Amino acid sequence: MSIINDGFLLKTETAKRLYGYAEGLPIIDYHCHISPKEIAEDIHFKDITEVWLGGDHYKWRLIRMTGAKESEITSGDPKTRFKRFAEALPLAAGNPMYHWTHLELKRYFDCDLDINPDTADEVYRICNEALERPDMSAKGLIKRSNVKMIGTTDDPADSLEWHEKIAADPEFDTLVLPSFRPDKAVNIDKPGFADYIKLLGKVSGEKTDSIEGVKRALTKRLEYFKEHGCRASDHGLDYPVYLPASEAEVGAILKSALCGEKITKEEAEKYKTAILLHCGREYARLGIVMQLHYNCQRQVNTRYSKALGHDTGFDCMRTFDGGEALTEFLDALDVTNELPRTILYSLNPADNELLDTVAGSFPGEEGIMKVQHGAAWWFNDTKSGMEAQLKSFANLLPIGGFVGMLTDSRSFLSYVRHEYFRRIFCNFLGDLVENGEYPADEKYLKKIVENVCYYNAAKFFGVE
Amino acid sequence: MSIINDGFLLKTETAKRLYGYAEGLPIIDYHCHISPKEIAEDIHFKDITEVWLGGDHYKWRLIRMTGAKESEITSGDPKTRFKRFAEALPLAAGNPMYHWTHLELKRYFDCDLDINPDTADEVYRICNEALERPDMSAKGLIKRSNVKMIGTTDDPADSLEWHEKIAADPEFDTLVLPSFRPDKAVNIDKPGFADYIKLLGKVSGEKTDSIEGVKRALTKRLEYFKEHGCRASDHGLDYPVYLPASEAEVGAILKSALCGEKITKEEAEKYKTAILLHCGREYARLGIVMQLHYNCQRQVNTRYSKALGHDTGFDCMRTFDGGEALTEFLDALDVTNELPRTILYSLNPADNELLDTVAGSFPGEEGIMKVQHGAAWWFNDTKSGMEAQLKSFANLLPIGGFVGMLTDSRSFLSYVRHEYFRRIFCNFLGDLVENGEYPADEKYLKKIVENVCYYNAAKFFGVE
Amino acid sequence: MSIINDGFLLKTETAKRLYGYAEGLPIIDYHCHISPKEIAEDIHFKDITEVWLGGDHYKWRLIRMTGAKESEITSGDPKTRFKRFAEALPLAAGNPMYHWTHLELKRYFDCDLDINPDTADEVYRICNEALERPDMSAKGLIKRSNVKMIGTTDDPADSLEWHEKIAADPEFDTLVLPSFRPDKAVNIDKPGFADYIKLLGKVSGEKTDSIEGVKRALTKRLEYFKEHGCRASDHGLDYPVYLPASEAEVGAILKSALCGEKITKEEAEKYKTAILLHCGREYARLGIVMQLHYNCQRQVNTRYSKALGHDTGFDCMRTFDGGEALTEFLDALDVTNELPRTILYSLNPADNELLDTVAGSFPGEEGIMKVQHGAAWWFNDTKSGMEAQLKSFANLLPIGGFVGMLTDSRSFLSYVRHEYFRRIFCNFLGDLVENGEYPADEKYLKKIVENVCYYNAAKFFGVE
Repeated sequence: MSIINDGFLLKTETAKRLYGYAEGLPIIDYHCHISPKEIAEDIHFKDITEVWLGGDHYKWRLIRMTGAKESEITSGDPKTRFKRFAEALPLAAGNPMYHWTHLELKRYFDCDLDINPDTADEVYRICNEALERPDMSAKGLIKRSNVKMIGTTDDPADSLEWHEKIAADPEFDTLVLPSFRPDKAVNIDKPGFADYIKLLGKVSGEKTDSIEGVKRALTKRLEYFKEHGCRASDHGLDYPVYLPASEAEVGAILKSALCGEKITKEEAEKYKTAILLHCGREYARLGIVMQLHYNCQRQVNTRYSKALGHDTGFDCMRTFDGGEALTEFLDALDVTNELPRTILYSLNPADNELLDTVAGSFPGEEGIMKVQHGAAWWFNDTKSGMEAQLKSFANLLPIGGFVGMLTDSRSFLSYVRHEYFRRIFCNFLGDLVENGEYPADEKYLKKIVENVCYYNAAKFFGVE
Repeated sequence: MSIINDGFLLKTETAKRLYGYAEGLPIIDYHCHISPKEIAEDIHFKDITEVWLGGDHYKWRLIRMTGAKESEITSGDPKTRFKRFAEALPLAAGNPMYHWTHLELKRYFDCDLDINPDTADEVYRICNEALERPDMSAKGLIKRSNVKMIGTTDDPADSLEWHEKIAADPEFDTLVLPSFRPDKAVNIDKPGFADYIKLLGKVSGEKTDSIEGVKRALTKRLEYFKEHGCRASDHGLDYPVYLPASEAEVGAILKSALCGEKITKEEAEKYKTAILLHCGREYARLGIVMQLHYNCQRQVNTRYSKALGHDTGFDCMRTFDGGEALTEFLDALDVTNELPRTILYSLNPADNELLDTVAGSFPGEEGIMKVQHGAAWWFNDTKSGMEAQLKSFANLLPIGGFVGMLTDSRSFLSYVRHEYFRRIFCNFLGDLVENGEYPADEKYLKKIVENVCYYNAAKFFGVE
Repeated sequence: MSIINDGFLLKTETAKRLYGYAEGLPIIDYHCHISPKEIAEDIHFKDITEVWLGGDHYKWRLIRMTGAKESEITSGDPKTRFKRFAEALPLAAGNPMYHWTHLELKRYFDCDLDINPDTADEVYRICNEALERPDMSAKGLIKRSNVKMIGTTDDPADSLEWHEKIAADPEFDTLVLPSFRPDKAVNIDKPGFADYIKLLGKVSGEKTDSIEGVKRALTKRLEYFKEHGCRASDHGLDYPVYLPASEAEVGAILKSALCGEKITKEEAEKYKTAILLHCGREYARLGIVMQLHYNCQRQVNTRYSKALGHDTGFDCMRTFDGGEALTEFLDALDVTNELPRTILYSLNPADNELLDTVAGSFPGEEGIMKVQHGAAWWFNDTKSGMEAQLKSFANLLPIGGFVGMLTDSRSFLSYVRHEYFRRIFCNFLGDLVENGEYPADEKYLKKIVENVCYYNAAKFFGVE
């Protein structure tokens, strides 16, 4: 019998009652990697293998850890691939994958089975039958998930044509808005930088052979994104940088890189600092939220990454010494009153408390928590990872001001992660009440639940 | 109805029974920032806004995070400021501020209300009325809090005149003892260093234009503090340093700094190492406890710090790589048998376990745990922060030897933090018993509770 | 009454039931420091002081922290030493020492007393009487502990004569296999390196005055170990290193070191990288498991270490910045398909999550989790330390693939640490079920328990 029932993760009566306030709220999924093209085309799925194992490197990774063959994980016969997944899942006790997958199975396929080798055939059949229904399309799944806003992740050079198409559909209410992710313009030390800067010049109509030009190009694209409803940006940093240099020096570094010369670590940090400061100021001017995430090592496994490419499940955490670069960067924006609304994430949970204290050092006066310690995602998107983030946030900041959950997902079924979060959050709050640490005052409890699960994000991202 | 009742934070019957041993014990508050002048003058408070929001940057910070205006937090009409606080508090579920404030409201004002916008007016009235009572003075509040000893935080150049005045009052039993905090003499890389070294020379009557002179001046002031009952010192370090250099080299660095020359990071570390070693040896000689705390970034927000000054709520955690500097520093003192009793604190809870293992590497033979991992304070002064420190300590050291809690506070109402700690500690110990991890042997349980809540500190700081 | 009863650490009915599957399984203790000579000679013990306080620096450390005299801890009258231990133990609520010691007292001496000053005499008498029984010898204790395999820790220069003698005893079934620990050949920056390299040359019959020679010598010794049943190696690193250099450069560094010249940190890292890569490749070729542990500072207390030597209780944690060196090292082996089965350990629990994500980035295809985040040991070998490791592992990897516990012990009574782990593991799994996070499906639960407590290790280390 499925672990998914009304009381899932809600251990106390208070938690169950509080979840009642959260359950029906719409979803604002302000940070994900869903494809606007797939939404615009309202695609259907061939089978459950495509849905679950088509691009989800979290799942690939789990299956790999059972020692299965790659040729039965990322390619090959769909049913065999599904069976490998069904073999891996029962070994994953305590893993969020176990929870997410069964939540999806219940919510989208109304199936109460536990997934394991004994049930694999039946689950496969049930899911594939359901996927043939007309409402199981991209838009159909979004609609039934009660999603108010989706923030996709988009390259500054993107035409945003799919976003335009989605917006033009009068039958589809969900806001699908682009988010500005200029990593390729920041990562001067990664392959392909020079070509990308050229592309950026072409798309923007600016000459990008100087630092001023690159900045102008980014600004133009950001304004274009803004016109298309963009509310947020996102920066993926190996580690926070803050190494200010003169405009002339940064310009020279850019020129070297565009000529294909090798850039030192220090030069890269100087260039990145300049571009990040420019972006931050423009976000502040245009009212765009700045998301910064760091402490991740990407593609650490050369052999697999060469064979499979990026975003295939070979990333891991890192650590970062000091913490000053992060505060100095935020301060450099704040000192001229150009710090935008910001969400800070570290992929390493050892940074939880540090980030809460950083956030707490940069207040705003607009009736909202201006700098946030973002939700537990990626490696931390687990029950105990979310609890740790919530506990740290509540210890060091007013939890009632938290902007709440995101999915970071590529899948149209991942909206259950908001349910997962809401249950965990209500259980967290319920425990405080039942342990006598917060009064059983329904008025304020309801307000906290509703704000954290919906209204804070609505306000933070300007969704009416 | 207030969450503050007899069972507050005591989840088991054992916890409740154990708290009975702790409840009536006097308080040794060996590390705080209370004003000896205010005690000597036995001041009264204008209103509850002054008490709670007069200088408490923990509270300011919480209110700021709701997006309130600074002009209604640190200045302006007292009632408006109180209302902002009453608006912030219900959002702070799980935050220690919620607990401390309601503990203070109950213990000092006998008020059972929850503080929130609906009750703000009434709470304001009740508190202000109570504050008019003669016994609600500085000394009155200390007396009713059953405080045996207070260790204030004092600059080596301080005259200690207020400590003398307090000691001269035959009606007031609490020991109010100065603690030696020579940060200004250590921080060669901070503004004002040269002026401070001159002042130190003047106050001590030593010539402080050489490293020998600075050391002599510090020793003379420490001896003066000792004569005034000083039992402890405190050092606030960005991060631990240990970079030994010759006396000649350190002398040259000092001279450069006194001439206003720019000091490199390495030079600063050499000078700091020399001064810290000197201080450590003198503490050992004079029987003064050495407190070292680190991993804090101070005043990271330039804009607010300029407007409001130091200690206004713009500090955050940092991280520190390696850990060798800390052990090498302690070892350099220990190798000549000149390591004083020491308490180590990191403001970053990720260091908990590391500090317990460092403490465990430096034993003494005087029937007491010589090097301690200090209590969870500042950012860690939360229920789960204290639990994490206790768990780590108990895992790696004999918890029965722990020197216990401090307030680090500027307020005369903060003694309830000892109650907070004692409840959390008794609950921690009670859980061990109720989970079958420690025997229900009243004799040893009582001993542990009494020692951790009072007697260990009494012994460690030489309070008879 | 002893805390050790059937339900010890098993808080739920499910936990108790699951422990039934674990209880009777044999033990694979793949990483310990037990003396093969003592096994071969089947030694008896003089008294319980020799057993418990003869070489166990975990216990010495705990006693020292009560402020006892060293002359009553590591030397002196056995009964006095035992009394000091009996005084320390009741102060150690929540410490694993409390649990281990009482588990040993119950399992090996069938004694239900709590150890404390009141019972010290009686416990001392009971234990000493029991130790006179013939079956309380080294082999007798191993037999009654149901140990299938022991992996000792051995220097590459070791003759393995004692392992041969043990293997030759037809009455003794337990496999006692050498593990390859070439730290002395890696640590070019530690005293005694040059002499050790000479010894290695002599024992291997290879000329070790060149880097090729050192590699050949290590290979020959590893092959010799392999012939003696070796299944695992172990490397104790201060911190992970990866600084590749040309063979010529590394050769020159080695020559400098052999001439007694001072080696820089960078040079040491280059040499270590070369030797570690060589070892890793040879492990892969010969099917030997590679264990890497790091983030420990050794002998930080000079005064005590000089008096008492290595491994006497003066080690502590450290931190390590970045994490790239670890992934780059593993990747350098993996890229040519020469990454052996690997277990990663950090002595600092702040690295738990990072290690799980590193392990998850290096899959194999042999039906087993190839790179593992190893069990919580040394400083982390506590109830909450194990729980934290399990939680992190389960969050980020399939827990059903975990290779399980080790003792890292020098004592013949330490096998109860496997019981300790198994109880904690079954309780962990039981909580998942009772909290509705994993289905109460006996088939898969039994499989997970049996695999983690025995069969995964059997497979990983090739024990039939």
